[in-house]
Amino acid sequence: MAGRGSLEVFLEGEWPEQSLDLLSSLLDEGVTLTTGSISGNCSVLVCGRPGRELLEAAPGLSHLLIPWAGLPESTRELMMEYPGIAVHNIHHNAAFAAELAVGLMIAAGRLILSSDRALRMGDWSYRYRQQHTMSVNGSRVLLLGYGHVGRAVGRIAKAMGACTKAIRRDPSGEGDQGTLPVHPPEALHELLPDTDFLVVALPLTQRTRGVIGEEELAMMHSRSVLVNVGRGQLVQQGPLYRSLAEGRIGAAGLDVWYRYPSSQQERNSTPPADFDFQLLENVVMTPHIGGGFGSPSLERSRCRHLAASLNSLARHGYMPDRVDLDKGY
Amino acid sequence: MAGRGSLEVFLEGEWPEQSLDLLSSLLDEGVTLTTGSISGNCSVLVCGRPGRELLEAAPGLSHLLIPWAGLPESTRELMMEYPGIAVHNIHHNAAFAAELAVGLMIAAGRLILSSDRALRMGDWSYRYRQQHTMSVNGSRVLLLGYGHVGRAVGRIAKAMGACTKAIRRDPSGEGDQGTLPVHPPEALHELLPDTDFLVVALPLTQRTRGVIGEEELAMMHSRSVLVNVGRGQLVQQGPLYRSLAEGRIGAAGLDVWYRYPSSQQERNSTPPADFDFQLLENVVMTPHIGGGFGSPSLERSRCRHLAASLNSLARHGYMPDRVDLDKGY
Repeated sequence: MAGRGSLEVFLEGEWPEQSLDLLSSLLDEGVTLTTGSISGNCSVLVCGRPGRELLEAAPGLSHLLIPWAGLPESTRELMMEYPGIAVHNIHHNAAFAAELAVGLMIAAGRLILSSDRALRMGDWSYRYRQQHTMSVNGSRVLLLGYGHVGRAVGRIAKAMGACTKAIRRDPSGEGDQGTLPVHPPEALHELLPDTDFLVVALPLTQRTRGVIGEEELAMMHSRSVLVNVGRGQLVQQGPLYRSLAEGRIGAAGLDVWYRYPSSQQERNSTPPADFDFQLLENVVMTPHIGGGFGSPSLERSRCRHLAASLNSLARHGYMPDRVDLDKGY
Repeated sequence: MAGRGSLEVFLEGEWPEQSLDLLSSLLDEGVTLTTGSISGNCSVLVCGRPGRELLEAAPGLSHLLIPWAGLPESTRELMMEYPGIAVHNIHHNAAFAAELAVGLMIAAGRLILSSDRALRMGDWSYRYRQQHTMSVNGSRVLLLGYGHVGRAVGRIAKAMGACTKAIRRDPSGEGDQGTLPVHPPEALHELLPDTDFLVVALPLTQRTRGVIGEEELAMMHSRSVLVNVGRGQLVQQGPLYRSLAEGRIGAAGLDVWYRYPSSQQERNSTPPADFDFQLLENVVMTPHIGGGFGSPSLERSRCRHLAASLNSLARHGYMPDRVDLDKGY
């Protein structure tokens, strides 16, 4: 085992040279980065979906660092068998997801897409029927989930002049306390009728799956806007589709879905749900771009967050953002 | 002339009953509101485009209060002849315009409209080519104009993690000093090359007309995003069209235009420019909806701002937001 301040890190998989260069340049002197094949002395593995053989190849492994936000179910199950290895992740893309959530709120609430389609045909009618729009300014926003993304949306919504509340499993949990009222999950039904924008930004777990269904949607008012940047399955697709199609809620902005392409071939021919959301005018639909995957600034942010976690471990013996395998996030 | 605290106000034109009720309920006891025909004792006229006969009908008129942001040219010219009547307006919709500006920044930068169009066809490709997107988070935002709208955009952009600067005719003017660097107009050319999002939120005057032209657009980089929520003529339409069509700038979000319907009949058949912006994929185009005209919360905001201005005059003899007829805003 190397001394305090030194650390051997293995980076699994293919990484763009630019990212490797930036990451290396940000690491403390004692932190060694290797790629290719893992060495037995390695103590940190940077990898999202490790195989069992990778974990076995480095007996001194103390940390698994997932290089994105989230915890794949297969990784969760495997790591339950390795209680000696702490699992961490990074929230480098929370600001990107929050920004998209805000973009979807405004686009759906202010009818940007329908206005654009009409004006391209010379039709100005949306200018004259804004009684149907919903502004974030002056509205009541409910953040369902108050982790990194929810908190970032909360800060932006506040700057926009919204009255914002949040729901969180542990209302006294870390981060941004006192900046807005945080309620426990039991308050959901009480808060929904007074919500203009519902922003779903929860992790997907057994407890959160389908948390917004027929009953919850029926509590929302007919001009309310639902935005989902968490995972599709948090909101039941049949009830959501029907609420939108029948105008029982006003609009939705959806970045996360129920069906995904399972291969490169399927990327141009995969409807994102079992229902025809694509026929609805009151939906803004984006193909899970919240995380900003591949954008240059996101990749820089990823490297900065990885370096911060690794340097913190080397300097202080402490790595932030530990994942709780039981909770699943 | 009535005593301190009392004020006779004439409201010109047709006002929805709901607005009249709300406005009346917000006014101090001594402030009397009349509609229909103007009385000779009236000291405040609420009206955007007064005729000469209206001004002459009330010899005690001390204030003209325009019930929206802006100053119509015909009103400016007429009021020059009445130096004894102070002209004021309200900025009740700045938050609405700022919100739309932010929505256009995100929609244009993150390719929300193209992504939506593709995903409706089952095409997920935008998920895999985000190297072409531009996030507000981590970007450099330049606010051209730092009045009520610019300052509101600045606050939101800051909450989103952008590095924001502003350009203002009088950098030491009132409002939000010290929250971000404010430069004089002469700095424009120096700042443009390092700008990722240019947000145009100036009033249209003789000095600002066409302020962004061929030369300025050529200084912007090929992934930069231009958003205009001021007036169309601030940005020269030919150069803007060509920069977008040739990919010399990345994208634009445009809420203000070069041609408007001049009658109700023309509302569904008026192309908004002399160039074919509607053929461009990298433009988000909305029909001047920034002000949120007609939305219920905007109308409530209008009443609150009118009441605040009138009560302030009745209580303190001071009305905020005086218009400078020489400057034109």
